[in-house]
Amino acid sequence: MIELSPQGLELTQIIPGMMRLDTWGMRGQALLDWIKQVMGMGLTSFDHADIYGGYGNEALFGDALRIEPSLRHQMQLVTKGGIQLMHPNRPDIVVNHYNTTAEHLIRSAEQSLLNLHTDYLDLYLVHRPDMLMHPSEIAEAFYQLRNSGKVRHFGVSNFTPSQFTLLEAYLDFPLVTNQVEFSVLHLDPLYDGTFDQALLSPYAPMIWSPLAGGRLFGATDDPQAQRVVAVLEEVAREVEARDIDSVALAWILQHPSNPTIITGSGKIERLQSALNATELTLSRQQWFRILVASLGHNVP
Amino acid sequence: MIELSPQGLELTQIIPGMMRLDTWGMRGQALLDWIKQVMGMGLTSFDHADIYGGYGNEALFGDALRIEPSLRHQMQLVTKGGIQLMHPNRPDIVVNHYNTTAEHLIRSAEQSLLNLHTDYLDLYLVHRPDMLMHPSEIAEAFYQLRNSGKVRHFGVSNFTPSQFTLLEAYLDFPLVTNQVEFSVLHLDPLYDGTFDQALLSPYAPMIWSPLAGGRLFGATDDPQAQRVVAVLEEVAREVEARDIDSVALAWILQHPSNPTIITGSGKIERLQSALNATELTLSRQQWFRILVASLGHNVP
Amino acid sequence: MIELSPQGLELTQIIPGMMRLDTWGMRGQALLDWIKQVMGMGLTSFDHADIYGGYGNEALFGDALRIEPSLRHQMQLVTKGGIQLMHPNRPDIVVNHYNTTAEHLIRSAEQSLLNLHTDYLDLYLVHRPDMLMHPSEIAEAFYQLRNSGKVRHFGVSNFTPSQFTLLEAYLDFPLVTNQVEFSVLHLDPLYDGTFDQALLSPYAPMIWSPLAGGRLFGATDDPQAQRVVAVLEEVAREVEARDIDSVALAWILQHPSNPTIITGSGKIERLQSALNATELTLSRQQWFRILVASLGHNVP
Repeated sequence: MIELSPQGLELTQIIPGMMRLDTWGMRGQALLDWIKQVMGMGLTSFDHADIYGGYGNEALFGDALRIEPSLRHQMQLVTKGGIQLMHPNRPDIVVNHYNTTAEHLIRSAEQSLLNLHTDYLDLYLVHRPDMLMHPSEIAEAFYQLRNSGKVRHFGVSNFTPSQFTLLEAYLDFPLVTNQVEFSVLHLDPLYDGTFDQALLSPYAPMIWSPLAGGRLFGATDDPQAQRVVAVLEEVAREVEARDIDSVALAWILQHPSNPTIITGSGKIERLQSALNATELTLSRQQWFRILVASLGHNVP
Repeated sequence: MIELSPQGLELTQIIPGMMRLDTWGMRGQALLDWIKQVMGMGLTSFDHADIYGGYGNEALFGDALRIEPSLRHQMQLVTKGGIQLMHPNRPDIVVNHYNTTAEHLIRSAEQSLLNLHTDYLDLYLVHRPDMLMHPSEIAEAFYQLRNSGKVRHFGVSNFTPSQFTLLEAYLDFPLVTNQVEFSVLHLDPLYDGTFDQALLSPYAPMIWSPLAGGRLFGATDDPQAQRVVAVLEEVAREVEARDIDSVALAWILQHPSNPTIITGSGKIERLQSALNATELTLSRQQWFRILVASLGHNVP
Repeated sequence: MIELSPQGLELTQIIPGMMRLDTWGMRGQALLDWIKQVMGMGLTSFDHADIYGGYGNEALFGDALRIEPSLRHQMQLVTKGGIQLMHPNRPDIVVNHYNTTAEHLIRSAEQSLLNLHTDYLDLYLVHRPDMLMHPSEIAEAFYQLRNSGKVRHFGVSNFTPSQFTLLEAYLDFPLVTNQVEFSVLHLDPLYDGTFDQALLSPYAPMIWSPLAGGRLFGATDDPQAQRVVAVLEEVAREVEARDIDSVALAWILQHPSNPTIITGSGKIERLQSALNATELTLSRQQWFRILVASLGHNVP
């Protein structure tokens, strides 16, 4: 388990992400079996959002959990609110937008509780910075959700350091994480102050798209990916990793901010591969060879 | 009236800007009549700078005010110093540059008092960040101008968050505003930390070029403007606004930092259109449709 | 002497840089004579790094100093650690990378002491921000080196403001400087917050590549350099400078952060030219004419 912040929330280092749960072909008892298998592997934290699966994935998960409610207290549930996505189920939404009013964030969290068949969330995140957000609205939502016991910890996702600092100034408790995109092909948080802030706060960032959304597998017109895959293959041989995924994830885990990783697949072998990453240690030179391949030039 | 900061300066939400006063064809009594008409509409704050109109617009305004000096205490005067612009009247200036020495800022503010025919300024702004500025020089100017009663409140214009923080660290009172460019076609302050800082301080930003310098009217080779105008026209119909200007300005006013808007026109109907904007409320989706048209892509 | 920070370290305004010492053709007594000549000019601070000259320049300097050890207490020695550069002498290094672990930084500083034939460094810098740096590791290295008397002051090089803030938060004493690239052809620190932070801390930045690595001399396919050289030549005539180098360096020294300059040449006449720069004063307009030539457009 990784402690996200001194406030005490612990999540597993590898966190199964439920973004594509609707495409895995499992429902009810079959899904429950999968959840129990995954939890048996030690992966007890699950990452959700209200909008995943056309606003439907939380309920799929909750329908499985309803069969065996006692599982709830052995897992950690993370979800997010604040995005309003166009979808056939939401004909009133005519443009993708954000809503971080207190009213919306509270209503969305309460709906997530219903969907997930639980009476509390371990962690609730504002999914995207909202250009119209007033931090006092978010603070009000967080206070109400915390005081009512509906949510235990709060964080954000995709926030810049400036936005993170702003919101935290309106709270009398720290945000426990910022869930951001990071991978061997997406290096921004190393350079734009995001990880500096994680080490300063301190909090453990949560990483989404840790395998660059599939760009590591097979693109022939993607020179950056080709350079990186070549080095990942070398390093995989050197450290005796079974696949390059493990190396790509180990590269993330080696960051001193102590990140956790959100996976995207429902396949047990992929989750095992992610777990394998937690056992790998890259040397500094291996880590920088991968960085340099991604940058396309030596570090200065 | 909008309170710019907890320090207490209040300005009108719509602020007639005097940048092009010299081109409006009004002098003396005619200009006084215009000022009184505008003040009768509730627009009592006026935005100046020493350099406007080839260093001449402050004096045009002051010459009108001289006819009826009692008006002074019913209005709020804002002006700026620190730019040294090449102009036939200033043959000693051979390159546009900045001067934020204490000596220059004090002399410039004192000249503005003479020009405007007043003995105090409600708000004095450093017009641009000066690459050679020493914050202790600006602080010295501000203290002297404040202690002598010549200036009541201080701020900056076009400062980055980093520059704003630096200057404020040298002052024992807060800056009450940052006057920055923002419009449906110029989105930077939403993303670069400027508005985050406004909400954090907090202060109400003042917005210049709120109609994007005319880019909203008629450019056929400006795809961004064309996309935005199309959506502004849709939204204008939906909210029953008389024109797209009002919608473009309402879009600005809806930002939670509580901005004030500097207008550019001397035409009463344009000022009325700006005033109309203060009565409009856009839905979140209307606001984001305009943002998305400006960005050219959906928000993530 | 320039006080780098209120903590008390003083260095000379012009600091001979030892990066290319190995190419100057001086060894032993000849180098000692050069050092004494340079110190006789008032230039008593010397800038080193472990990696300069293929990890060899510190030892060249130390071999000269060994002949007359009493000189040590009349000079200030600066060096850096944390880069691991590929070089025939270091066959174990297969990719240029960084290492800012406590163990490496301490070992590197101790090796620098041996190389330089001294028992203390006046200033030790982390040479580059390390993507894998944990500030607690750097802090541990700094504390041990300080408590053992091996290093008197600490700083960084090429750090962003965010990285600087992060490291300082882990220390109970301030960093005394950030050594950064700045010149008439490299303007970044004016705009990216680096010099704002120097004025805020406050600390005096150290400037490397102050003559833009030779770009000021003779490049015909470098329009920026050509524009700047033309203006430097005009200004050199106006202020009766002997050469454009002096003007280019005076332009740097005029920044209110009170920078020191690292030179790159071993030629006495070039060091004299740098010293001449400290006697020049540019007017604000001369300074901005050079800035505008570099930008390629007027300031707004």
